[in-house]
Amino acid sequence: MTRPVSLDWLAAPATIPDLGARAAARSRQADLIKPPGALGRLEEIAVHLASLQGTPRPSAERVHITIFAADHGVAVEGVSPYPQSVTADMVRSFAEGGAAISNLARALGATLEVVDLGTVGDSGSPGDLVRRLPLGRGTRNLAVEAAMSEAQLAAALEAGRDAACRARSAAVDILVVGEMGIGNTTAAAALGAALLGCSGSTLVGLGSGLDPSRLPHKAETIESALRLHAGYLDDPIEAVRRVSGFEIAALTGSYVAAAQLGLPVLVDGFIATAAALAAVRLQPGVRDWLLFGHRSSEAGHGPLLQALDATPLLDLGLRLGEGSGAAIAVPLLRLACALHNGMATFSEAGVSVAE
Amino acid sequence: MTRPVSLDWLAAPATIPDLGARAAARSRQADLIKPPGALGRLEEIAVHLASLQGTPRPSAERVHITIFAADHGVAVEGVSPYPQSVTADMVRSFAEGGAAISNLARALGATLEVVDLGTVGDSGSPGDLVRRLPLGRGTRNLAVEAAMSEAQLAAALEAGRDAACRARSAAVDILVVGEMGIGNTTAAAALGAALLGCSGSTLVGLGSGLDPSRLPHKAETIESALRLHAGYLDDPIEAVRRVSGFEIAALTGSYVAAAQLGLPVLVDGFIATAAALAAVRLQPGVRDWLLFGHRSSEAGHGPLLQALDATPLLDLGLRLGEGSGAAIAVPLLRLACALHNGMATFSEAGVSVAE
Repeated sequence: MTRPVSLDWLAAPATIPDLGARAAARSRQADLIKPPGALGRLEEIAVHLASLQGTPRPSAERVHITIFAADHGVAVEGVSPYPQSVTADMVRSFAEGGAAISNLARALGATLEVVDLGTVGDSGSPGDLVRRLPLGRGTRNLAVEAAMSEAQLAAALEAGRDAACRARSAAVDILVVGEMGIGNTTAAAALGAALLGCSGSTLVGLGSGLDPSRLPHKAETIESALRLHAGYLDDPIEAVRRVSGFEIAALTGSYVAAAQLGLPVLVDGFIATAAALAAVRLQPGVRDWLLFGHRSSEAGHGPLLQALDATPLLDLGLRLGEGSGAAIAVPLLRLACALHNGMATFSEAGVSVAE
Repeated sequence: MTRPVSLDWLAAPATIPDLGARAAARSRQADLIKPPGALGRLEEIAVHLASLQGTPRPSAERVHITIFAADHGVAVEGVSPYPQSVTADMVRSFAEGGAAISNLARALGATLEVVDLGTVGDSGSPGDLVRRLPLGRGTRNLAVEAAMSEAQLAAALEAGRDAACRARSAAVDILVVGEMGIGNTTAAAALGAALLGCSGSTLVGLGSGLDPSRLPHKAETIESALRLHAGYLDDPIEAVRRVSGFEIAALTGSYVAAAQLGLPVLVDGFIATAAALAAVRLQPGVRDWLLFGHRSSEAGHGPLLQALDATPLLDLGLRLGEGSGAAIAVPLLRLACALHNGMATFSEAGVSVAE
């Protein structure tokens, strides 16, 4: 299939992590006044970030959060307990500061922006916080046709790239990309199943709180989509176009671009991980740039994480989206860096080493 | 056995959590603009802290950290790869600011104090940060006699109570109590096994990095102690006296006192949890006041947590002690409070609720 020229950027290679910085950070870790390995995964994080940031002294202080919001045609199938109007309502709440991610961004001192890629309801006026780039009044119903056109796909991916570029220009240390969209656990499960070649029922879950009695219907909706689009799903980008959504495509675009730009990303939960898997399938080098914030309580998250060989930092039963699970993991990165950069070495402190 | 009068304070009851504040906090949680339960354990934490702090709007901003340090006679058995001098070295490092907990306290804006209860080496001059209350040059070898005298036990427990009182006077929101002492995973395993009535091998682990070939010897050292003191270990406080250490007794005293004073405590890893189990065995009401920061990679932590019906917030492979795993969990409490206190309600935000 011929792609519009505007997708060519996806082919640019991911930045190669800095192995010299990694070695220097590892060497420093080994000399800190603690038994080797006693800080567990915080040691790994510091060394990993060092390799991504190209410095033996990494940082996670400056964090930028972009939330992509969009509606989903598949919502008409009754796969969510919430009306589609909630997507636009939540965009307003992000802007007004009452949403979970708004509070997390404030508490973390992170910058926050919201990109409305097309909601059914009225998401209010754009402002300093909200960019409006409507690609349609939500996607089309992926259970009966492709969720988006080639042009919409290209624009959504590009919106993701633009967010990563803005973050890079602002010289942030870590990028968090989140999502909001009623119906998007259905789309993410469909995309994940397309990428993994598994059934929809493997990845289906209760999302924002579906009545468990409706789970078989949600699974069947995903299965219908997989049957309808069968034969077109081997190409990850075509899978994104046919069975995901605007905000999911934007997440995929942001992950690819962040890896190209050399910007570490903290991945959120189920939907973000489906988008991340698409990005890694497009370009395996993207994987290096992804840290995983949390294991969601959404049932399908486990298989997606496994496919990415990812062990998230937190497992707190979160399932909110909005980038919240990634944001909640930010302090762990910061403390990992504080320990790595601030602790004394055995030689400095005059402490005896192990026998 | 007749107890010195000075242990009478242990019998004062723990404060009863405020069920009204709990109900108010739970009601607020249910109205926040998110699907019910979507913030998982962060919702539970906020509600739990509300009940402990007696307010529907809890806080974890003001945190005090006390580290108790002491040496262990059982170190002579070769149960640690580090010489005993490291305990005093680390007290100096806490004061000088290069240790892990020093860096964590700084990063968290927490107050830090160190109480030296008796080290073999020279821990330097006391200062603003370090209190010296030496109860001996470490404990006696618990594998051949009781680790401490009745008077030492009473003084160590009291040192713990004093730390909780200072924290309460300073009106902190959360107390963290940590420990440093070469050989103290052996003592904690012996105490835990005494309290659980299990074998030493159930709780033995590699501690700060013992060569695995020496693990059977460490287990046998613990078993020897359990055999020697058999018949005296049903009384939790006598178990603390015979098979633990000064700093472990101080932790136990601080947990009991914190519960009496109505001060929430964030418990660290293996050694802290053994001390917490002793405190809860002394007074079951103490359990309400304990939040658990992390699951240590020390093998014996699991059974101790299970006995306390505790699921820690983090599982990052940490095994440093110094209160570090609890400190690293502090941001989770803070974010739980920020979300609970700061998020808008459905009515405020004009967001539709679920069908």
